[in-house]
Amino acid sequence: MARFFNNRSRKVGLAPGTAIYTGTKKEGSSTMELLSYSTDDVEEKKNASIEDVLMLPENRTNWINLNGVHDVDKVKAICDHFEVHPLLTEDILNTDQRPKLDVHENHIYLVLNMIEYLPDKGKIKMEQVSFIIGKNLVLSFQEVVGDTFNPVRDRIHGKGRICGRGAEYLVYALMDTVVDNYFVALEKIGDEMELIEEDILVNPDVESLQDLYSLKREMLALRRAIWPLREVIAQIEREDSRLVTKANKLYFRDLYDHMIQVIDTIEIYRDLLAGMVDLYQSTISNRMNSIMKVLTIISTVFIPITFLTGVYGMNFEYMPGLSNVNGFWIITGIVLASMISMLLYFRKQGWFK
Amino acid sequence: MARFFNNRSRKVGLAPGTAIYTGTKKEGSSTMELLSYSTDDVEEKKNASIEDVLMLPENRTNWINLNGVHDVDKVKAICDHFEVHPLLTEDILNTDQRPKLDVHENHIYLVLNMIEYLPDKGKIKMEQVSFIIGKNLVLSFQEVVGDTFNPVRDRIHGKGRICGRGAEYLVYALMDTVVDNYFVALEKIGDEMELIEEDILVNPDVESLQDLYSLKREMLALRRAIWPLREVIAQIEREDSRLVTKANKLYFRDLYDHMIQVIDTIEIYRDLLAGMVDLYQSTISNRMNSIMKVLTIISTVFIPITFLTGVYGMNFEYMPGLSNVNGFWIITGIVLASMISMLLYFRKQGWFK
Amino acid sequence: MARFFNNRSRKVGLAPGTAIYTGTKKEGSSTMELLSYSTDDVEEKKNASIEDVLMLPENRTNWINLNGVHDVDKVKAICDHFEVHPLLTEDILNTDQRPKLDVHENHIYLVLNMIEYLPDKGKIKMEQVSFIIGKNLVLSFQEVVGDTFNPVRDRIHGKGRICGRGAEYLVYALMDTVVDNYFVALEKIGDEMELIEEDILVNPDVESLQDLYSLKREMLALRRAIWPLREVIAQIEREDSRLVTKANKLYFRDLYDHMIQVIDTIEIYRDLLAGMVDLYQSTISNRMNSIMKVLTIISTVFIPITFLTGVYGMNFEYMPGLSNVNGFWIITGIVLASMISMLLYFRKQGWFK
Amino acid sequence: MARFFNNRSRKVGLAPGTAIYTGTKKEGSSTMELLSYSTDDVEEKKNASIEDVLMLPENRTNWINLNGVHDVDKVKAICDHFEVHPLLTEDILNTDQRPKLDVHENHIYLVLNMIEYLPDKGKIKMEQVSFIIGKNLVLSFQEVVGDTFNPVRDRIHGKGRICGRGAEYLVYALMDTVVDNYFVALEKIGDEMELIEEDILVNPDVESLQDLYSLKREMLALRRAIWPLREVIAQIEREDSRLVTKANKLYFRDLYDHMIQVIDTIEIYRDLLAGMVDLYQSTISNRMNSIMKVLTIISTVFIPITFLTGVYGMNFEYMPGLSNVNGFWIITGIVLASMISMLLYFRKQGWFK
Amino acid sequence: MARFFNNRSRKVGLAPGTAIYTGTKKEGSSTMELLSYSTDDVEEKKNASIEDVLMLPENRTNWINLNGVHDVDKVKAICDHFEVHPLLTEDILNTDQRPKLDVHENHIYLVLNMIEYLPDKGKIKMEQVSFIIGKNLVLSFQEVVGDTFNPVRDRIHGKGRICGRGAEYLVYALMDTVVDNYFVALEKIGDEMELIEEDILVNPDVESLQDLYSLKREMLALRRAIWPLREVIAQIEREDSRLVTKANKLYFRDLYDHMIQVIDTIEIYRDLLAGMVDLYQSTISNRMNSIMKVLTIISTVFIPITFLTGVYGMNFEYMPGLSNVNGFWIITGIVLASMISMLLYFRKQGWFK
Repeated sequence: MARFFNNRSRKVGLAPGTAIYTGTKKEGSSTMELLSYSTDDVEEKKNASIEDVLMLPENRTNWINLNGVHDVDKVKAICDHFEVHPLLTEDILNTDQRPKLDVHENHIYLVLNMIEYLPDKGKIKMEQVSFIIGKNLVLSFQEVVGDTFNPVRDRIHGKGRICGRGAEYLVYALMDTVVDNYFVALEKIGDEMELIEEDILVNPDVESLQDLYSLKREMLALRRAIWPLREVIAQIEREDSRLVTKANKLYFRDLYDHMIQVIDTIEIYRDLLAGMVDLYQSTISNRMNSIMKVLTIISTVFIPITFLTGVYGMNFEYMPGLSNVNGFWIITGIVLASMISMLLYFRKQGWFK
Repeated sequence: MARFFNNRSRKVGLAPGTAIYTGTKKEGSSTMELLSYSTDDVEEKKNASIEDVLMLPENRTNWINLNGVHDVDKVKAICDHFEVHPLLTEDILNTDQRPKLDVHENHIYLVLNMIEYLPDKGKIKMEQVSFIIGKNLVLSFQEVVGDTFNPVRDRIHGKGRICGRGAEYLVYALMDTVVDNYFVALEKIGDEMELIEEDILVNPDVESLQDLYSLKREMLALRRAIWPLREVIAQIEREDSRLVTKANKLYFRDLYDHMIQVIDTIEIYRDLLAGMVDLYQSTISNRMNSIMKVLTIISTVFIPITFLTGVYGMNFEYMPGLSNVNGFWIITGIVLASMISMLLYFRKQGWFK
Repeated sequence: MARFFNNRSRKVGLAPGTAIYTGTKKEGSSTMELLSYSTDDVEEKKNASIEDVLMLPENRTNWINLNGVHDVDKVKAICDHFEVHPLLTEDILNTDQRPKLDVHENHIYLVLNMIEYLPDKGKIKMEQVSFIIGKNLVLSFQEVVGDTFNPVRDRIHGKGRICGRGAEYLVYALMDTVVDNYFVALEKIGDEMELIEEDILVNPDVESLQDLYSLKREMLALRRAIWPLREVIAQIEREDSRLVTKANKLYFRDLYDHMIQVIDTIEIYRDLLAGMVDLYQSTISNRMNSIMKVLTIISTVFIPITFLTGVYGMNFEYMPGLSNVNGFWIITGIVLASMISMLLYFRKQGWFK
Repeated sequence: MARFFNNRSRKVGLAPGTAIYTGTKKEGSSTMELLSYSTDDVEEKKNASIEDVLMLPENRTNWINLNGVHDVDKVKAICDHFEVHPLLTEDILNTDQRPKLDVHENHIYLVLNMIEYLPDKGKIKMEQVSFIIGKNLVLSFQEVVGDTFNPVRDRIHGKGRICGRGAEYLVYALMDTVVDNYFVALEKIGDEMELIEEDILVNPDVESLQDLYSLKREMLALRRAIWPLREVIAQIEREDSRLVTKANKLYFRDLYDHMIQVIDTIEIYRDLLAGMVDLYQSTISNRMNSIMKVLTIISTVFIPITFLTGVYGMNFEYMPGLSNVNGFWIITGIVLASMISMLLYFRKQGWFK
Repeated sequence: MARFFNNRSRKVGLAPGTAIYTGTKKEGSSTMELLSYSTDDVEEKKNASIEDVLMLPENRTNWINLNGVHDVDKVKAICDHFEVHPLLTEDILNTDQRPKLDVHENHIYLVLNMIEYLPDKGKIKMEQVSFIIGKNLVLSFQEVVGDTFNPVRDRIHGKGRICGRGAEYLVYALMDTVVDNYFVALEKIGDEMELIEEDILVNPDVESLQDLYSLKREMLALRRAIWPLREVIAQIEREDSRLVTKANKLYFRDLYDHMIQVIDTIEIYRDLLAGMVDLYQSTISNRMNSIMKVLTIISTVFIPITFLTGVYGMNFEYMPGLSNVNGFWIITGIVLASMISMLLYFRKQGWFK
């Protein structure tokens, strides 16, 4: 059950705001990318250092993306530089947050999950992304290096609409990309479900049952990771916070509609999976039924006639019919009549369908 | 699971408002019909072109119906002409929307699903219809050519009440027709359910189980496609928007009542289907029970007496009774007594009922 | 599934407010009764004609009861005379309404269902009753002739409290009678449930299963027909409409309490029925278990000893013990020992309880 | 199902406020006790008559307790004397009320249920208690004589805090006693559940199943009888009615907390009972499994070797091995090998665990 | 079911506010610790007596921790000294409270549960902790001696942030420690669930079923003990009570987020456990299926051929083929052909997979 939250034991009793990374240990150092842009000018720096961050111009939109929150020192350095509240820094490092929005005095804190479905393992890979949004500033913290945000980078380089709309729109664009990836993951899960369903109908074995339960568990985890995001987006849309200028409101409304669709789909998948469990059990019962039919037909046809042969296998000295020339044929006739009447009875019962 | 949403993968990372058709690829071009009317005058143009749209008089009620939203260019041309917001144009082209109402500055956007039940395939066919409502203007976008709206056309040609009530009432009439068709589909589904139920009671085989689950899945899809429409209509009725003049309010109230009935029926169908799954499983258990009874009766009657014949089939030199003249008849008596007492026991147990 | 709504297909595409009867076709004409009364004077006219209606005095409380809404012409004539809105007339003729209250400018429209349980058929008979309430005026529309309202007529003739309290109190009295009949129907259903439950415990066959499911379906229909009435009565009580003078408020509050009890009972019945399905399945499993025990005991006792007799039935020339004088008795001893040890084992397993 | 409401049929069509007793007929007459007290003086009269009631002093706190509401005349006499509204008198006589609070002009009406669990019968005994609360006045109406209120009587006689706090505190004290008895009943039910659970685990027979379902049904009745009381107490606490002076508010808050605990416990019991049904079914399945294992092991071990003996029991003139001196021993070897390999196979399958 | 509430019977009829301990009887006396601190000075007294309490300075933050609420006298002495309301004292002694917050005039009363999971017993150990919060004062009452609060003591001794923030922050710190321990308990339960799940998949016996149900019951108890705490914390955060200065609000918000995570996890565990019950039943059905297959294969292969041998074991004088030299071999051929065709049939049915 480890997937439902990280190891919190080592935090018990510590003062709140203590910066401790709670995810699984990761090798390698973190990397950082800076993107500083205005309407007509884009500057990018890959593999940036803390020094680069300190020298960012304030009058442009700055996006700092850190890959690898296990690098506690770097996270702390950045957060301290931008005067982020210690409780927020702690949240960034705790990689089992529910999606939430915290509006602080200087910053808005936003955390959500990136989802990827790995069909080979039948597992959903989740990665937490935290955003700190300030004036002209977006900090994003990912757990590992990934290419999810590349399309946004391309659009900035392409000097699209995104360049003239400031930090809020950038956050929207990043969230939109994350939500779009939910659809991709759900499509793959849907394909997996179709495979399992076919399996169940054709050959309901123990393995397909385990696949089914494994998928059910994944959907539970997925639902927990995504569901609160709807409320977060509604909150963004509702609030008269910095995030939503009137022009951007429409876009967040659109994002909200997408979230509703994602959640609808998750709920339907859960219903479908519950239905598939029922289907599995019904199919198993059906199989049992047909196995029992075979057994019963064979047994009830042969047991009585075997008894009959047993009778004439007894060694009594005086038995009627043993010396009858047609005795054997009479018995054979009785046997055949018995078999045929049994079979007719079963056909009448509809057992051969 | 493809039916629950379209392939969104190809949209990942694109800027919002990008006009891309997300439904299944369709052959053939789109067609367009214009209907321009006032209280005493109706003009219709079938197979209209974009040029015809541009020349529509503004002081009459204009209804432009496009069949085939896969024709992205034409959709864009019309939307651009009437200054529809790009996000709305994108929504028109995404054919997996939930029913919703978006009130923009110049237009109201309304999207809902048309439902048809195809009993042969056991499938529900859904088609998305989008409406853009402006001053004296109704744009409707269908996925394919259909005859659903013909009765409304006839009523306009018949110069009924509909002609004097403007664009809002036209939208109401079109929605009413769509909702009326929900009842037709639900009736057909109800008939299908009755067939399946009879099947389950008479001959509960694997096929009826699969029909049952297929229908359950269709109901899930149906519910998802229809449920939000109730809220949309309530919203229309509630808002003091252009759509609801006081005179029209009564009609939307009526439509709302119909929606409640539709949704009630969907929920009852779902309950009934759940009950049918239980019924199926109980019937299967019952069958198993009666199969087991047959097996048990035959086995328990014949196995003991077969043993008895086995005893007197042994080849011991010294066996009591073998040379007894009445030995065979005594054994026969024991056999018959054993059989009869077994059968009496089973009758007492109520196994022959 | 026809019972969940009437055939709406024939209404598709018609203009709203078109007066079409949607119930099942009925033979015979409708009948009408007039009751016109004040505090000290009661006048009744059975088999009244439209002309009688037109001549009713306006300063008395008038109650017009029509039996047979399939008589579209008469319904229309009455409604037109009292200037009822066409949409309401349409609702009166649609005999599959949910209970609802519509407050129009001149009239209040109220629709609810009368319930009767027919134990012979195991069916609930529902009949829609519509009320139009105006100043000094109550119109009631029933589907067929019935005696449900007779007690109210008697109380009017008896010049009870009812005579001095006007149209609103009359409506209350009629609703009260309808709700009282819900209790009668629920009592009968409760009796039926007790019979089925006993059946399940004593002799769980396929028929009792079907009775159970049929009752479950009836309860679904009943719930759908009654549940919204609670909200309707709450609405009556809440609103400062004409219906509730302060003096009458107490009575509607009382009616509301009764409705709560009705709905409580329906929900409990549904829970009980769900429990009975479980009980049925558990009882079937139990039966299967005891059948299997019989089969297993007989088989495992006799199969091994039958094998033993088979051994000594072989025709080998050299077999130990065949010529032994006590061979037969030794084998018999082994057989008996084997049987007894088997039976002891089963008793230890608790199979004979 | 009679326990869920009383026979209402005989009330159909009667005018509301008609005083009719609806409970089961009871023998014997009713008894009445008066308690009249102030801070320093207590007067009690057992077996009081209506005349005693009429002569009660008005400046003291008067508690009139009637045992036996089937004595309609006496109930009416008391109610009429204190000018209780006829609808309330009707409610007192209807012994199947849900708990409710009705605030009238002169009186507050409060009705709730006393619960007692009778383990011998496996039944919950419910008794309705109605309170009429007026200035310095508490009327309580019980269905039968009981000792539930004795502790309160003792506390009054003991001249505790209760004496100086007036009618409202007396009502609180009586309600508190009733709620305390809920805990006692729930404890007994909990003990019963433990017994049934043990039964299910050790020896899951039909009887324990029936006990289980009977208890489930009792819990349904209990829940229905108690659940609304929470809302009643919340209403008392919320309202600025006479019942809650500021000093008493704390006590009603405390009572509310107890009610929450009662309801929590009922819900948990229901969950536990649902779990026990599952447990029962799983245990039955397990038993079936082990029965089948025994049958299968015996059958599959002996059927093949019985066949073998059958082969050498055939009477062909030319059969290989019959005259072989070691024939019998060879066959015996084959038989033993076959048995041992079968048993090894089953052990590998884990059937002996 | 004793774990769901304590023995309340002995309290029936007593006046509210009577100080009676309702938990299980405990041996040994209680112990008490005092901690009195300001920003720069900490004083601790272990094994303090009532006299020590009376002499506490009022201008510092005082924390009095009592281990052992069964020591009624000491609890009463402390509560009386600080003028705690008798109803609160009663609550402290009732060790089966739901978590709640009571804001009184002088004090705030807060009660919650400490949780520990004991994997050996498969039980959750719960202990009630009550807090009385006054000006500069925190009283905490535990049921037994424990080390849960040690980290807070250490932080006070370490003169961390906690020392300068007063009684409210101390309460927060203690609550935070308790909630942190919820995570620890949930982790252990998650591990236990993984073990059971593995058991079910590998070897679904009766024991794992009982473990499963026992865990389900523990989760019910856990949920009941924790769920209301969320509302309590939300209430603390919402209210403008003394507890939440603006500076502390952020910390309670953080605590609230943790509670949401705890409750999320509990709900997911419950879903997972429900899934595991299904999984168990499906696995059992599967096992039954494979057992039945073995039985059926063996029976249907051997029963017909055993019949055949029976035929040629009959003692008729005139039987065809008995004297045929190849008779035996022909029969052997038929037997083999019959066996092979049976096995082919089963392979086609997929029974060997």
